Amino acid sequence: MKLSDRFGRVLAIAPHPDDEILGCGGTLARLVDEGADVTIAVATTGRQPIFPREQVEQVQQEMRRAHAIIGVTDTRMLDLPAAELDAIPARECNAPFAQLVDDVRPDTLLLPFVGDIHLDHQYTFLASMVAARPRHSNAPCDILCYETVSETNWYAAPTTPAFVPNVFIDIQSTLERKLEAFGAFASQVRPFPEERSPETLRAMAAVRGSAVHLHAAEAFMHVRSILRA
Amino acid sequence: MKLSDRFGRVLAIAPHPDDEILGCGGTLARLVDEGADVTIAVATTGRQPIFPREQVEQVQQEMRRAHAIIGVTDTRMLDLPAAELDAIPARECNAPFAQLVDDVRPDTLLLPFVGDIHLDHQYTFLASMVAARPRHSNAPCDILCYETVSETNWYAAPTTPAFVPNVFIDIQSTLERKLEAFGAFASQVRPFPEERSPETLRAMAAVRGSAVHLHAAEAFMHVRSILRA
Amino acid sequence: MKLSDRFGRVLAIAPHPDDEILGCGGTLARLVDEGADVTIAVATTGRQPIFPREQVEQVQQEMRRAHAIIGVTDTRMLDLPAAELDAIPARECNAPFAQLVDDVRPDTLLLPFVGDIHLDHQYTFLASMVAARPRHSNAPCDILCYETVSETNWYAAPTTPAFVPNVFIDIQSTLERKLEAFGAFASQVRPFPEERSPETLRAMAAVRGSAVHLHAAEAFMHVRSILRA
Amino acid sequence: MKLSDRFGRVLAIAPHPDDEILGCGGTLARLVDEGADVTIAVATTGRQPIFPREQVEQVQQEMRRAHAIIGVTDTRMLDLPAAELDAIPARECNAPFAQLVDDVRPDTLLLPFVGDIHLDHQYTFLASMVAARPRHSNAPCDILCYETVSETNWYAAPTTPAFVPNVFIDIQSTLERKLEAFGAFASQVRPFPEERSPETLRAMAAVRGSAVHLHAAEAFMHVRSILRA
Amino acid sequence: MKLSDRFGRVLAIAPHPDDEILGCGGTLARLVDEGADVTIAVATTGRQPIFPREQVEQVQQEMRRAHAIIGVTDTRMLDLPAAELDAIPARECNAPFAQLVDDVRPDTLLLPFVGDIHLDHQYTFLASMVAARPRHSNAPCDILCYETVSETNWYAAPTTPAFVPNVFIDIQSTLERKLEAFGAFASQVRPFPEERSPETLRAMAAVRGSAVHLHAAEAFMHVRSILRA
Amino acid sequence: MKLSDRFGRVLAIAPHPDDEILGCGGTLARLVDEGADVTIAVATTGRQPIFPREQVEQVQQEMRRAHAIIGVTDTRMLDLPAAELDAIPARECNAPFAQLVDDVRPDTLLLPFVGDIHLDHQYTFLASMVAARPRHSNAPCDILCYETVSETNWYAAPTTPAFVPNVFIDIQSTLERKLEAFGAFASQVRPFPEERSPETLRAMAAVRGSAVHLHAAEAFMHVRSILRA
Repeated sequence: MKLSDRFGRVLAIAPHPDDEILGCGGTLARLVDEGADVTIAVATTGRQPIFPREQVEQVQQEMRRAHAIIGVTDTRMLDLPAAELDAIPARECNAPFAQLVDDVRPDTLLLPFVGDIHLDHQYTFLASMVAARPRHSNAPCDILCYETVSETNWYAAPTTPAFVPNVFIDIQSTLERKLEAFGAFASQVRPFPEERSPETLRAMAAVRGSAVHLHAAEAFMHVRSILRA
Repeated sequence: MKLSDRFGRVLAIAPHPDDEILGCGGTLARLVDEGADVTIAVATTGRQPIFPREQVEQVQQEMRRAHAIIGVTDTRMLDLPAAELDAIPARECNAPFAQLVDDVRPDTLLLPFVGDIHLDHQYTFLASMVAARPRHSNAPCDILCYETVSETNWYAAPTTPAFVPNVFIDIQSTLERKLEAFGAFASQVRPFPEERSPETLRAMAAVRGSAVHLHAAEAFMHVRSILRA
Repeated sequence: MKLSDRFGRVLAIAPHPDDEILGCGGTLARLVDEGADVTIAVATTGRQPIFPREQVEQVQQEMRRAHAIIGVTDTRMLDLPAAELDAIPARECNAPFAQLVDDVRPDTLLLPFVGDIHLDHQYTFLASMVAARPRHSNAPCDILCYETVSETNWYAAPTTPAFVPNVFIDIQSTLERKLEAFGAFASQVRPFPEERSPETLRAMAAVRGSAVHLHAAEAFMHVRSILRA
Repeated sequence: MKLSDRFGRVLAIAPHPDDEILGCGGTLARLVDEGADVTIAVATTGRQPIFPREQVEQVQQEMRRAHAIIGVTDTRMLDLPAAELDAIPARECNAPFAQLVDDVRPDTLLLPFVGDIHLDHQYTFLASMVAARPRHSNAPCDILCYETVSETNWYAAPTTPAFVPNVFIDIQSTLERKLEAFGAFASQVRPFPEERSPETLRAMAAVRGSAVHLHAAEAFMHVRSILRA
Repeated sequence: MKLSDRFGRVLAIAPHPDDEILGCGGTLARLVDEGADVTIAVATTGRQPIFPREQVEQVQQEMRRAHAIIGVTDTRMLDLPAAELDAIPARECNAPFAQLVDDVRPDTLLLPFVGDIHLDHQYTFLASMVAARPRHSNAPCDILCYETVSETNWYAAPTTPAFVPNVFIDIQSTLERKLEAFGAFASQVRPFPEERSPETLRAMAAVRGSAVHLHAAEAFMHVRSILRA
Repeated sequence: MKLSDRFGRVLAIAPHPDDEILGCGGTLARLVDEGADVTIAVATTGRQPIFPREQVEQVQQEMRRAHAIIGVTDTRMLDLPAAELDAIPARECNAPFAQLVDDVRPDTLLLPFVGDIHLDHQYTFLASMVAARPRHSNAPCDILCYETVSETNWYAAPTTPAFVPNVFIDIQSTLERKLEAFGAFASQVRPFPEERSPETLRAMAAVRGSAVHLHAAEAFMHVRSILRA
C-alpha cells in the first residue's frame, strides 16, 4: 500500500528550519514522489538581535532549497520568535498553529518530540496538539513524532519523556535526497562526530531500518490515530 | 480511506473465545463488511478436568455463532491449555503462534494487552510478538492491542503496564453486531454492573468514541508499525 | 462507611467553571448528601477582551445554579485570568491557592489532572500541590485527581502523564444530579459525540462503575494519602 | 479519624514470615490497638531439603511471637513452597489466595510490592490481585503495597516497577512494638548496615514520617480504592 | 578506587543555598578530602522585596560558613532571581549556566532533580542540561541528580518524574561534617519531624546507606555518563 | 581516566554466545587493552534435540575464536539449557549465577537488558541481579545493561521496559576488533538489513557515538552504582 494512501494530506511542523529534514525528510520525499499533498510549517523565525539578519536570511534560503530538493512546494512560516517560545503566552503561541491546522486540514501530522531538550520543540508539540484536538470530524487522523538528532537524545530520558521509536517508515528510495536536502543547510551541517552530520543521518537510517528489516528508515513515536468510517 | 486498505490481511488473536469479540468485534465486523481477509485465532481450549467437556463445547458453539454474526469465516484453534499457559515451556507455547503467523501472513495483528491481569493474556501477547519479530520483509506491518473488559483494568496499572488507548476505530456501523455476537456467548454474558455485559460494552463504545468525536469506537494501544515501500 | 467520614472536609479545585462538575460532581453531591463540608474553588475567571463580559457572566450564573443543584454552598473564586495561567509568574499564581488551602483547611483535595492538555489545568494542579505541601500537621490527608472529558484524554499519554484511574467512587445515587448540574451549563453542553455531552458523562459513569462492579462511578487517580494518628 | 474506621477488616499477606512485620508491622499494631479485625496470611512455608526442618520451625515460632507482640491473633498459613512460587502452576498458586480472600472478606488488603526482586513476592502480589478482582460487591475496597527492606530496593527500578511511596501511615505509637516484633525474628535480624536491622527500620520510619511531617511512618504504594455507597 | 579519580573536576549546582548541602554535602566533603577540585554554583539569590535584604545576607553568610565546613573554596553565584526562574525567558536563564559550565569545565555535574516540586529546581535542571549538551569533547562525563528533602518528595510521583535512587555514595567519613554544614544554615534548620532537620538527614543517610550495605550514603539518580578514551 | 580504573574487575554475562560481542564487544576489547581483568560468562548451552550437536559445537568454536580476538581469556559456561530458562525453577537457574559472582567478585557487571524479547535474556538479567544483591561489601559496584540487536528492540517498549541509553563508552579504538569478533560467528552473521550484520553494528556505533560527540560508542542503560570509600 502506498504511504500516501495511508497518510492522506500531510503536515509536518518544524520548530526551526532543518528539523523537518532531520526528522522526516525522507518520509516527506517519499510522500511527494507518491503524489501526496505535503505541507511544511516552520514555527519560528530568528529575530534580531539574537539572530543576525544575514544568518536568518541564509537559513531561509537554505530551507527553500532543501524543500525544493524534497519536492515540497507548500512551505508556511508561522513567524514566531526563535528560541523564545517559552517567553510568549501560550494563547499567542497557540493561535497560529490553530490557524495553520484549520487551513491545511491535514490527515497526518508530523511533530517534533515532546521530550526534546529544546523548549521550542516542547512548545511546538503542545501547540500542535492543542490545534489537533479531536473536537470535530476533521481533526487529524494520525499524529506522529519524529526524532531530531541533537535535540531528542540530549534531555534526561527516561526520567523526562523517552523517544522510543515504534513507527518505522521505509526511506530507501529517498535517503540520498534527504541527505542532499540536509546538505543544503550549509550553515547547519557539522562534521562527524557531531550528530548534525551526513554520516550520522546515514547511520541512523541504517539503524532504524535494520531494526525492522529495512535498508533505510526514519523512526517515529506514535501519538494518536483515529480511523474513521 | 477504507480501514481494510490500511489494515490489509488481519489476524486477531484471542487467549480465550470471546476476548476477540469484547476487544475488537466491532472492528472485525467493519473489516469484513469492507471485504477484508480476517482470521481469528483462539490460543487456548479448556481441558478436562478443569473445564467440563460440555462447558467447553458450549463455548465453542457460542464462538462459532459469534464469528458467524461478525462474518469471520476463518477461525483457527491453537488448542493450548486454557488457564495454563504459564505452566508450559515458552518454546512449546511459542511454536503454534509462529506456525499461525507463518500461515496467515497478516499485515495487521490484533492482540490482547500485555498488562492484562490474566497470565494467558500476557503469554499470548509475548508469543505473538515473538512470532511477529521483524526478521524478514513479511513480518506484520501493524500491531495493536485491544482492551478486554474484566482483564485489562484489573491488574495494578500504572505500576504494571497501563492500557492507554491511542488508536480509535469507528465502529458505529457495527456496534449492534458486536453486541449481538457477544450475546451469542450466553455462558459468558453477565448482568450489569459486571463488565462483561452489553451495557458496559455499549457505554465503552460511547466513551472511546466521543473521546475523538465518534459515536462509537473501539480503542487500541499501538505497538508497532512498519510502513514498507 | 460513609464517604464523608473518610474524606472529612473537602475542597475541589476547578481551573474553570464546570470542570468540577464534569470531574467530580457526583462525588460532591454524595458528600453533600452525607452532610460533609464541601468547598468548590474556581481558579480562573474569563477576562475581557478574550472572554466577552456577557459570556463570563452567563457562565458564572450557570455555575451558581450548578452548585446549587449539587448542594454546594461554599464557592470561592480565585479570579486568576482564564487561559493565561502560564503567563503569570508562579509566585503570583501560587499565592491565592496557598491562601485558599490555609483558609479552608481541607482534609481531602480534589484536583484536575497534571497531564490534562490545557495549561490552566497543569498550573492549577501544580499550584494546589505547592499549597498542600506536607510541611505541618494540617496539610491535606488525601489528594486525588479527577478526569475532565475533553482535557484529560487529549494530550499525548503515555508519553505525557497518563490518567490511569485507581480510585472509584460510587455515584449511583447522585448521577442524575450530576447530569442536571452539568445541564445547567447551557453554554458548555455539546451534542454527542462531543465529550462534553450528557451521553458521554452517563456512559463514562457506567464504564468507570462497572470496572469495579458499581452501577455508576467517578474515577480518580490517587496522588497522596497521609493517615495521621 | 481512626485508621480502623477507614480500613475496616484488614488482611496483610506476606510471602514469607517477617515480610509483614518489616513492611506494615507498625500499621497492623496500630489497627489492633484501635480494635480492628486484622488477619495475617503467610503465603509460603520452607520445605525440606531446601529449608531444614529446625530452621522452619524456628521461624514459625519467631513468627508466632512476633504476631503476639503486634497483637494479631488470626494468622493463616497458605503453605505454598517457599522460594518456589515461580515453579508451580499459577492455577495452583492462585487457589489458596482465592480461598483466603473469600474466607476473610477483607476491606483492606496489604500486599508485597510487585517490583520486589524476589519472585515469591511478585507471585504473591499477582495471586492476591487475582483473588481481589472486583467482580462482586465484596471485593476489597483498598489495596496497598508495603515495602520490604532488602527486597523492594534491589531490583532494577525504574526500568522494573519502582516503589514510589504515596500513602503514609503514622506509626509513632507503635514503632517500638514493630521493632520488638522484628526482634522476635532472631534468625532474621542482621547487624546494621544490613537492611534487615533495627537501625534501618527505625531510620526508615523517620524518613518516611518526616516526608509528611510525622515522627514515624510506614509508607505504601496505592493500588486501588473502591468507595462504595 | 578514589571517588575523586572517578569524578574528576566536580560542579554541584544548587537552586538556592543549602540545597547542595542537603543533597550532596557529604559527597562534596569526601571529594574535598580526597583532593578533588570542587565548585559549588548557586543559581539564585533572593531579591527585594520578596526576600528582605537581611535575610538574604544571613543566608549568604550561612552558606559561606557551610562551604567552609565542607571545605569547598570555589563558590559561584549566578544571581538569578530566587523563586522567579519560571518568570524569566529561558534564554536569559540559560546564559549564566552555559557560561558557568564553560568556565569550570566539570567532569561531573551534580544537579537538583527534575521532578522536584519547586520550579526553580526544575529550571535549574533544564538550564544545566542545556549547558551540558554533549556537543563537543569537553562536555561533562557524568551527570547525577541529588535529592533535596522537602522538594524531591512533594510533587506527584510517579505521575510526575519519580526520584528512584540508583547511585549510592558512601559518606560515612563525612556525614558529621554534612550535618555541621547544614547546621550552619541556622535560618533553614527546622525541628524534626520537619524534613529539613538533622534527624531526617541522619536517618536518610542510614536508609540510603543500608540499602547497599553502607553505614551512611547519599543517593543520586543517574542521568548520563560518557566514558571517553 | 582509564576505563579499567573505573570498572575494575569486569564480568560480562551473555544469555547465549555472541550476545556479549553484539552488546559490549568493543568495551571488553578496550578493557583488555587497558589491562583489565575481564571475564565472560555464557549462561546457556544448546541441548539436543532442540539444538543439533554440530551446531552447538560450531557456535562454541566461533565463540572461542571471538573471545580470542577480543582478548578475553577467562570464559565460563554456566551450561543452563538454551531457550529454556523459563522452564526451569528460578532456584536452579539462580544457583550458578550466584556461584559465578561469588567466584569472580566483579566490580562491574555487564548484563543483557531486562526488556529484551527473549525470555532467556530476561531470566539472565533477573538471576544476575539476584546474585548481585548488595548484601555485603563485595557486591558489584556498577551494573549496566547492554543492548543486543534483534532482541532489545523487538518487544513492546515503552509498554514493556524501554532501552533508553544513558551510558556511552568510546570504542573507536576497538570497533574493528568488535566487528572481527562478530565475524567469527559465521553461523550467526546475517546479511544487512538483518540487524545481526556488520553494517548494522557499524552504524549503531556511529549513532550511539555521535549522540555524545564520539566517533564510535557502545551504549548501555545504567542500573546501579555503589561508590564505596
